[in-house]
Amino acid sequence: MKEVSVILFNNFETLDAFGPVEIFGRLPEHFAVKLYSPEGGIVTSSPNVSVVTEPLTAFNAEEYILFVPGGIGTRELVHNESFISKLKSLAENAEYILTVCTGSILFSKTGLLNGKNATSNKRVFQWTQLESPEVNWIKKARWVKDGNIYTSSGVSAGMDMTLGFIADILGYETAKTQSDQIEYDWKEDSTWDPYAELH
Amino acid sequence: MKEVSVILFNNFETLDAFGPVEIFGRLPEHFAVKLYSPEGGIVTSSPNVSVVTEPLTAFNAEEYILFVPGGIGTRELVHNESFISKLKSLAENAEYILTVCTGSILFSKTGLLNGKNATSNKRVFQWTQLESPEVNWIKKARWVKDGNIYTSSGVSAGMDMTLGFIADILGYETAKTQSDQIEYDWKEDSTWDPYAELH
Repeated sequence: MKEVSVILFNNFETLDAFGPVEIFGRLPEHFAVKLYSPEGGIVTSSPNVSVVTEPLTAFNAEEYILFVPGGIGTRELVHNESFISKLKSLAENAEYILTVCTGSILFSKTGLLNGKNATSNKRVFQWTQLESPEVNWIKKARWVKDGNIYTSSGVSAGMDMTLGFIADILGYETAKTQSDQIEYDWKEDSTWDPYAELH
Repeated sequence: MKEVSVILFNNFETLDAFGPVEIFGRLPEHFAVKLYSPEGGIVTSSPNVSVVTEPLTAFNAEEYILFVPGGIGTRELVHNESFISKLKSLAENAEYILTVCTGSILFSKTGLLNGKNATSNKRVFQWTQLESPEVNWIKKARWVKDGNIYTSSGVSAGMDMTLGFIADILGYETAKTQSDQIEYDWKEDSTWDPYAELH
């Protein structure tokens, strides 16, 4: 059993987090989803969903997948050194790290993506390069895997990446069954990305 | 400006609600999303997301879209006469009613779907017919529109229905722009449904 440690913050993007949470949560024999935020308590997403979280001080998982969604709230957090430092130490002990959308930009501030392949939201792709030029940002990708780090493109892409991650660690059939059960047309090919040219 | 009045309950399915909420919430000039539950306060989804809601007694919207997700929690609520009666009165004054997954089964207990076309989750399709045989349940459909009532197939289908609904009332381009922005491969054809045969 691995904990999926979802790091939330005010103005996280709703679907970035809750698409993947839906999928992980359907496999309770493998994953226990837990929601955190820097201070704990209630944090509010864009758009306007208030959820209950544990504070990062309560973090005590041993085997865990660090999960970082994106959203407009990342614009402020990239400058929060104390948060980035905490995120870095959580990442250094994580078995896997998964980010969705601008979550990869937030995570890149830890320096742990430097020299690695990663992707992000295609609408703000210039911002990725400005914030962290030492990352090898790949524009055309639904998601990118580099070692134990998975980064996805914008919002909906987090669901495809999560299914891809589950296929990698639990096998294709487990992922395919989940996508069929939620009637989701899983993009199984991580290079599928019409949005790279659109935005 | 219309309120999207999302009716939550314990063990609602996370993505049933928050896929559509993501989409509606990105159009704040047209929609204001508000989360309710029978008693208000914190309700917890499958899987395990605790969200803050208003009680139904605080409901005072005038122009609103009643939105009913599904989930395992509907199994208990279909037998809750007081809730069904409240749901019926909310529906009678709603401009539109949208349901996702087994939300249509819950809503069918109001009697307001009798004689109308509707769909639901394909994995529990037999249950739809047992609960409400007077509804014209359509198996092969991503979503179904009958008058001002939209019902969708399972979980992910709620996002396609929501985009279809937005196309109907605000125009195709508005819906398409939203789906592109969240990098979502919108199934624009409401009859697209490979899951009808799969489950």
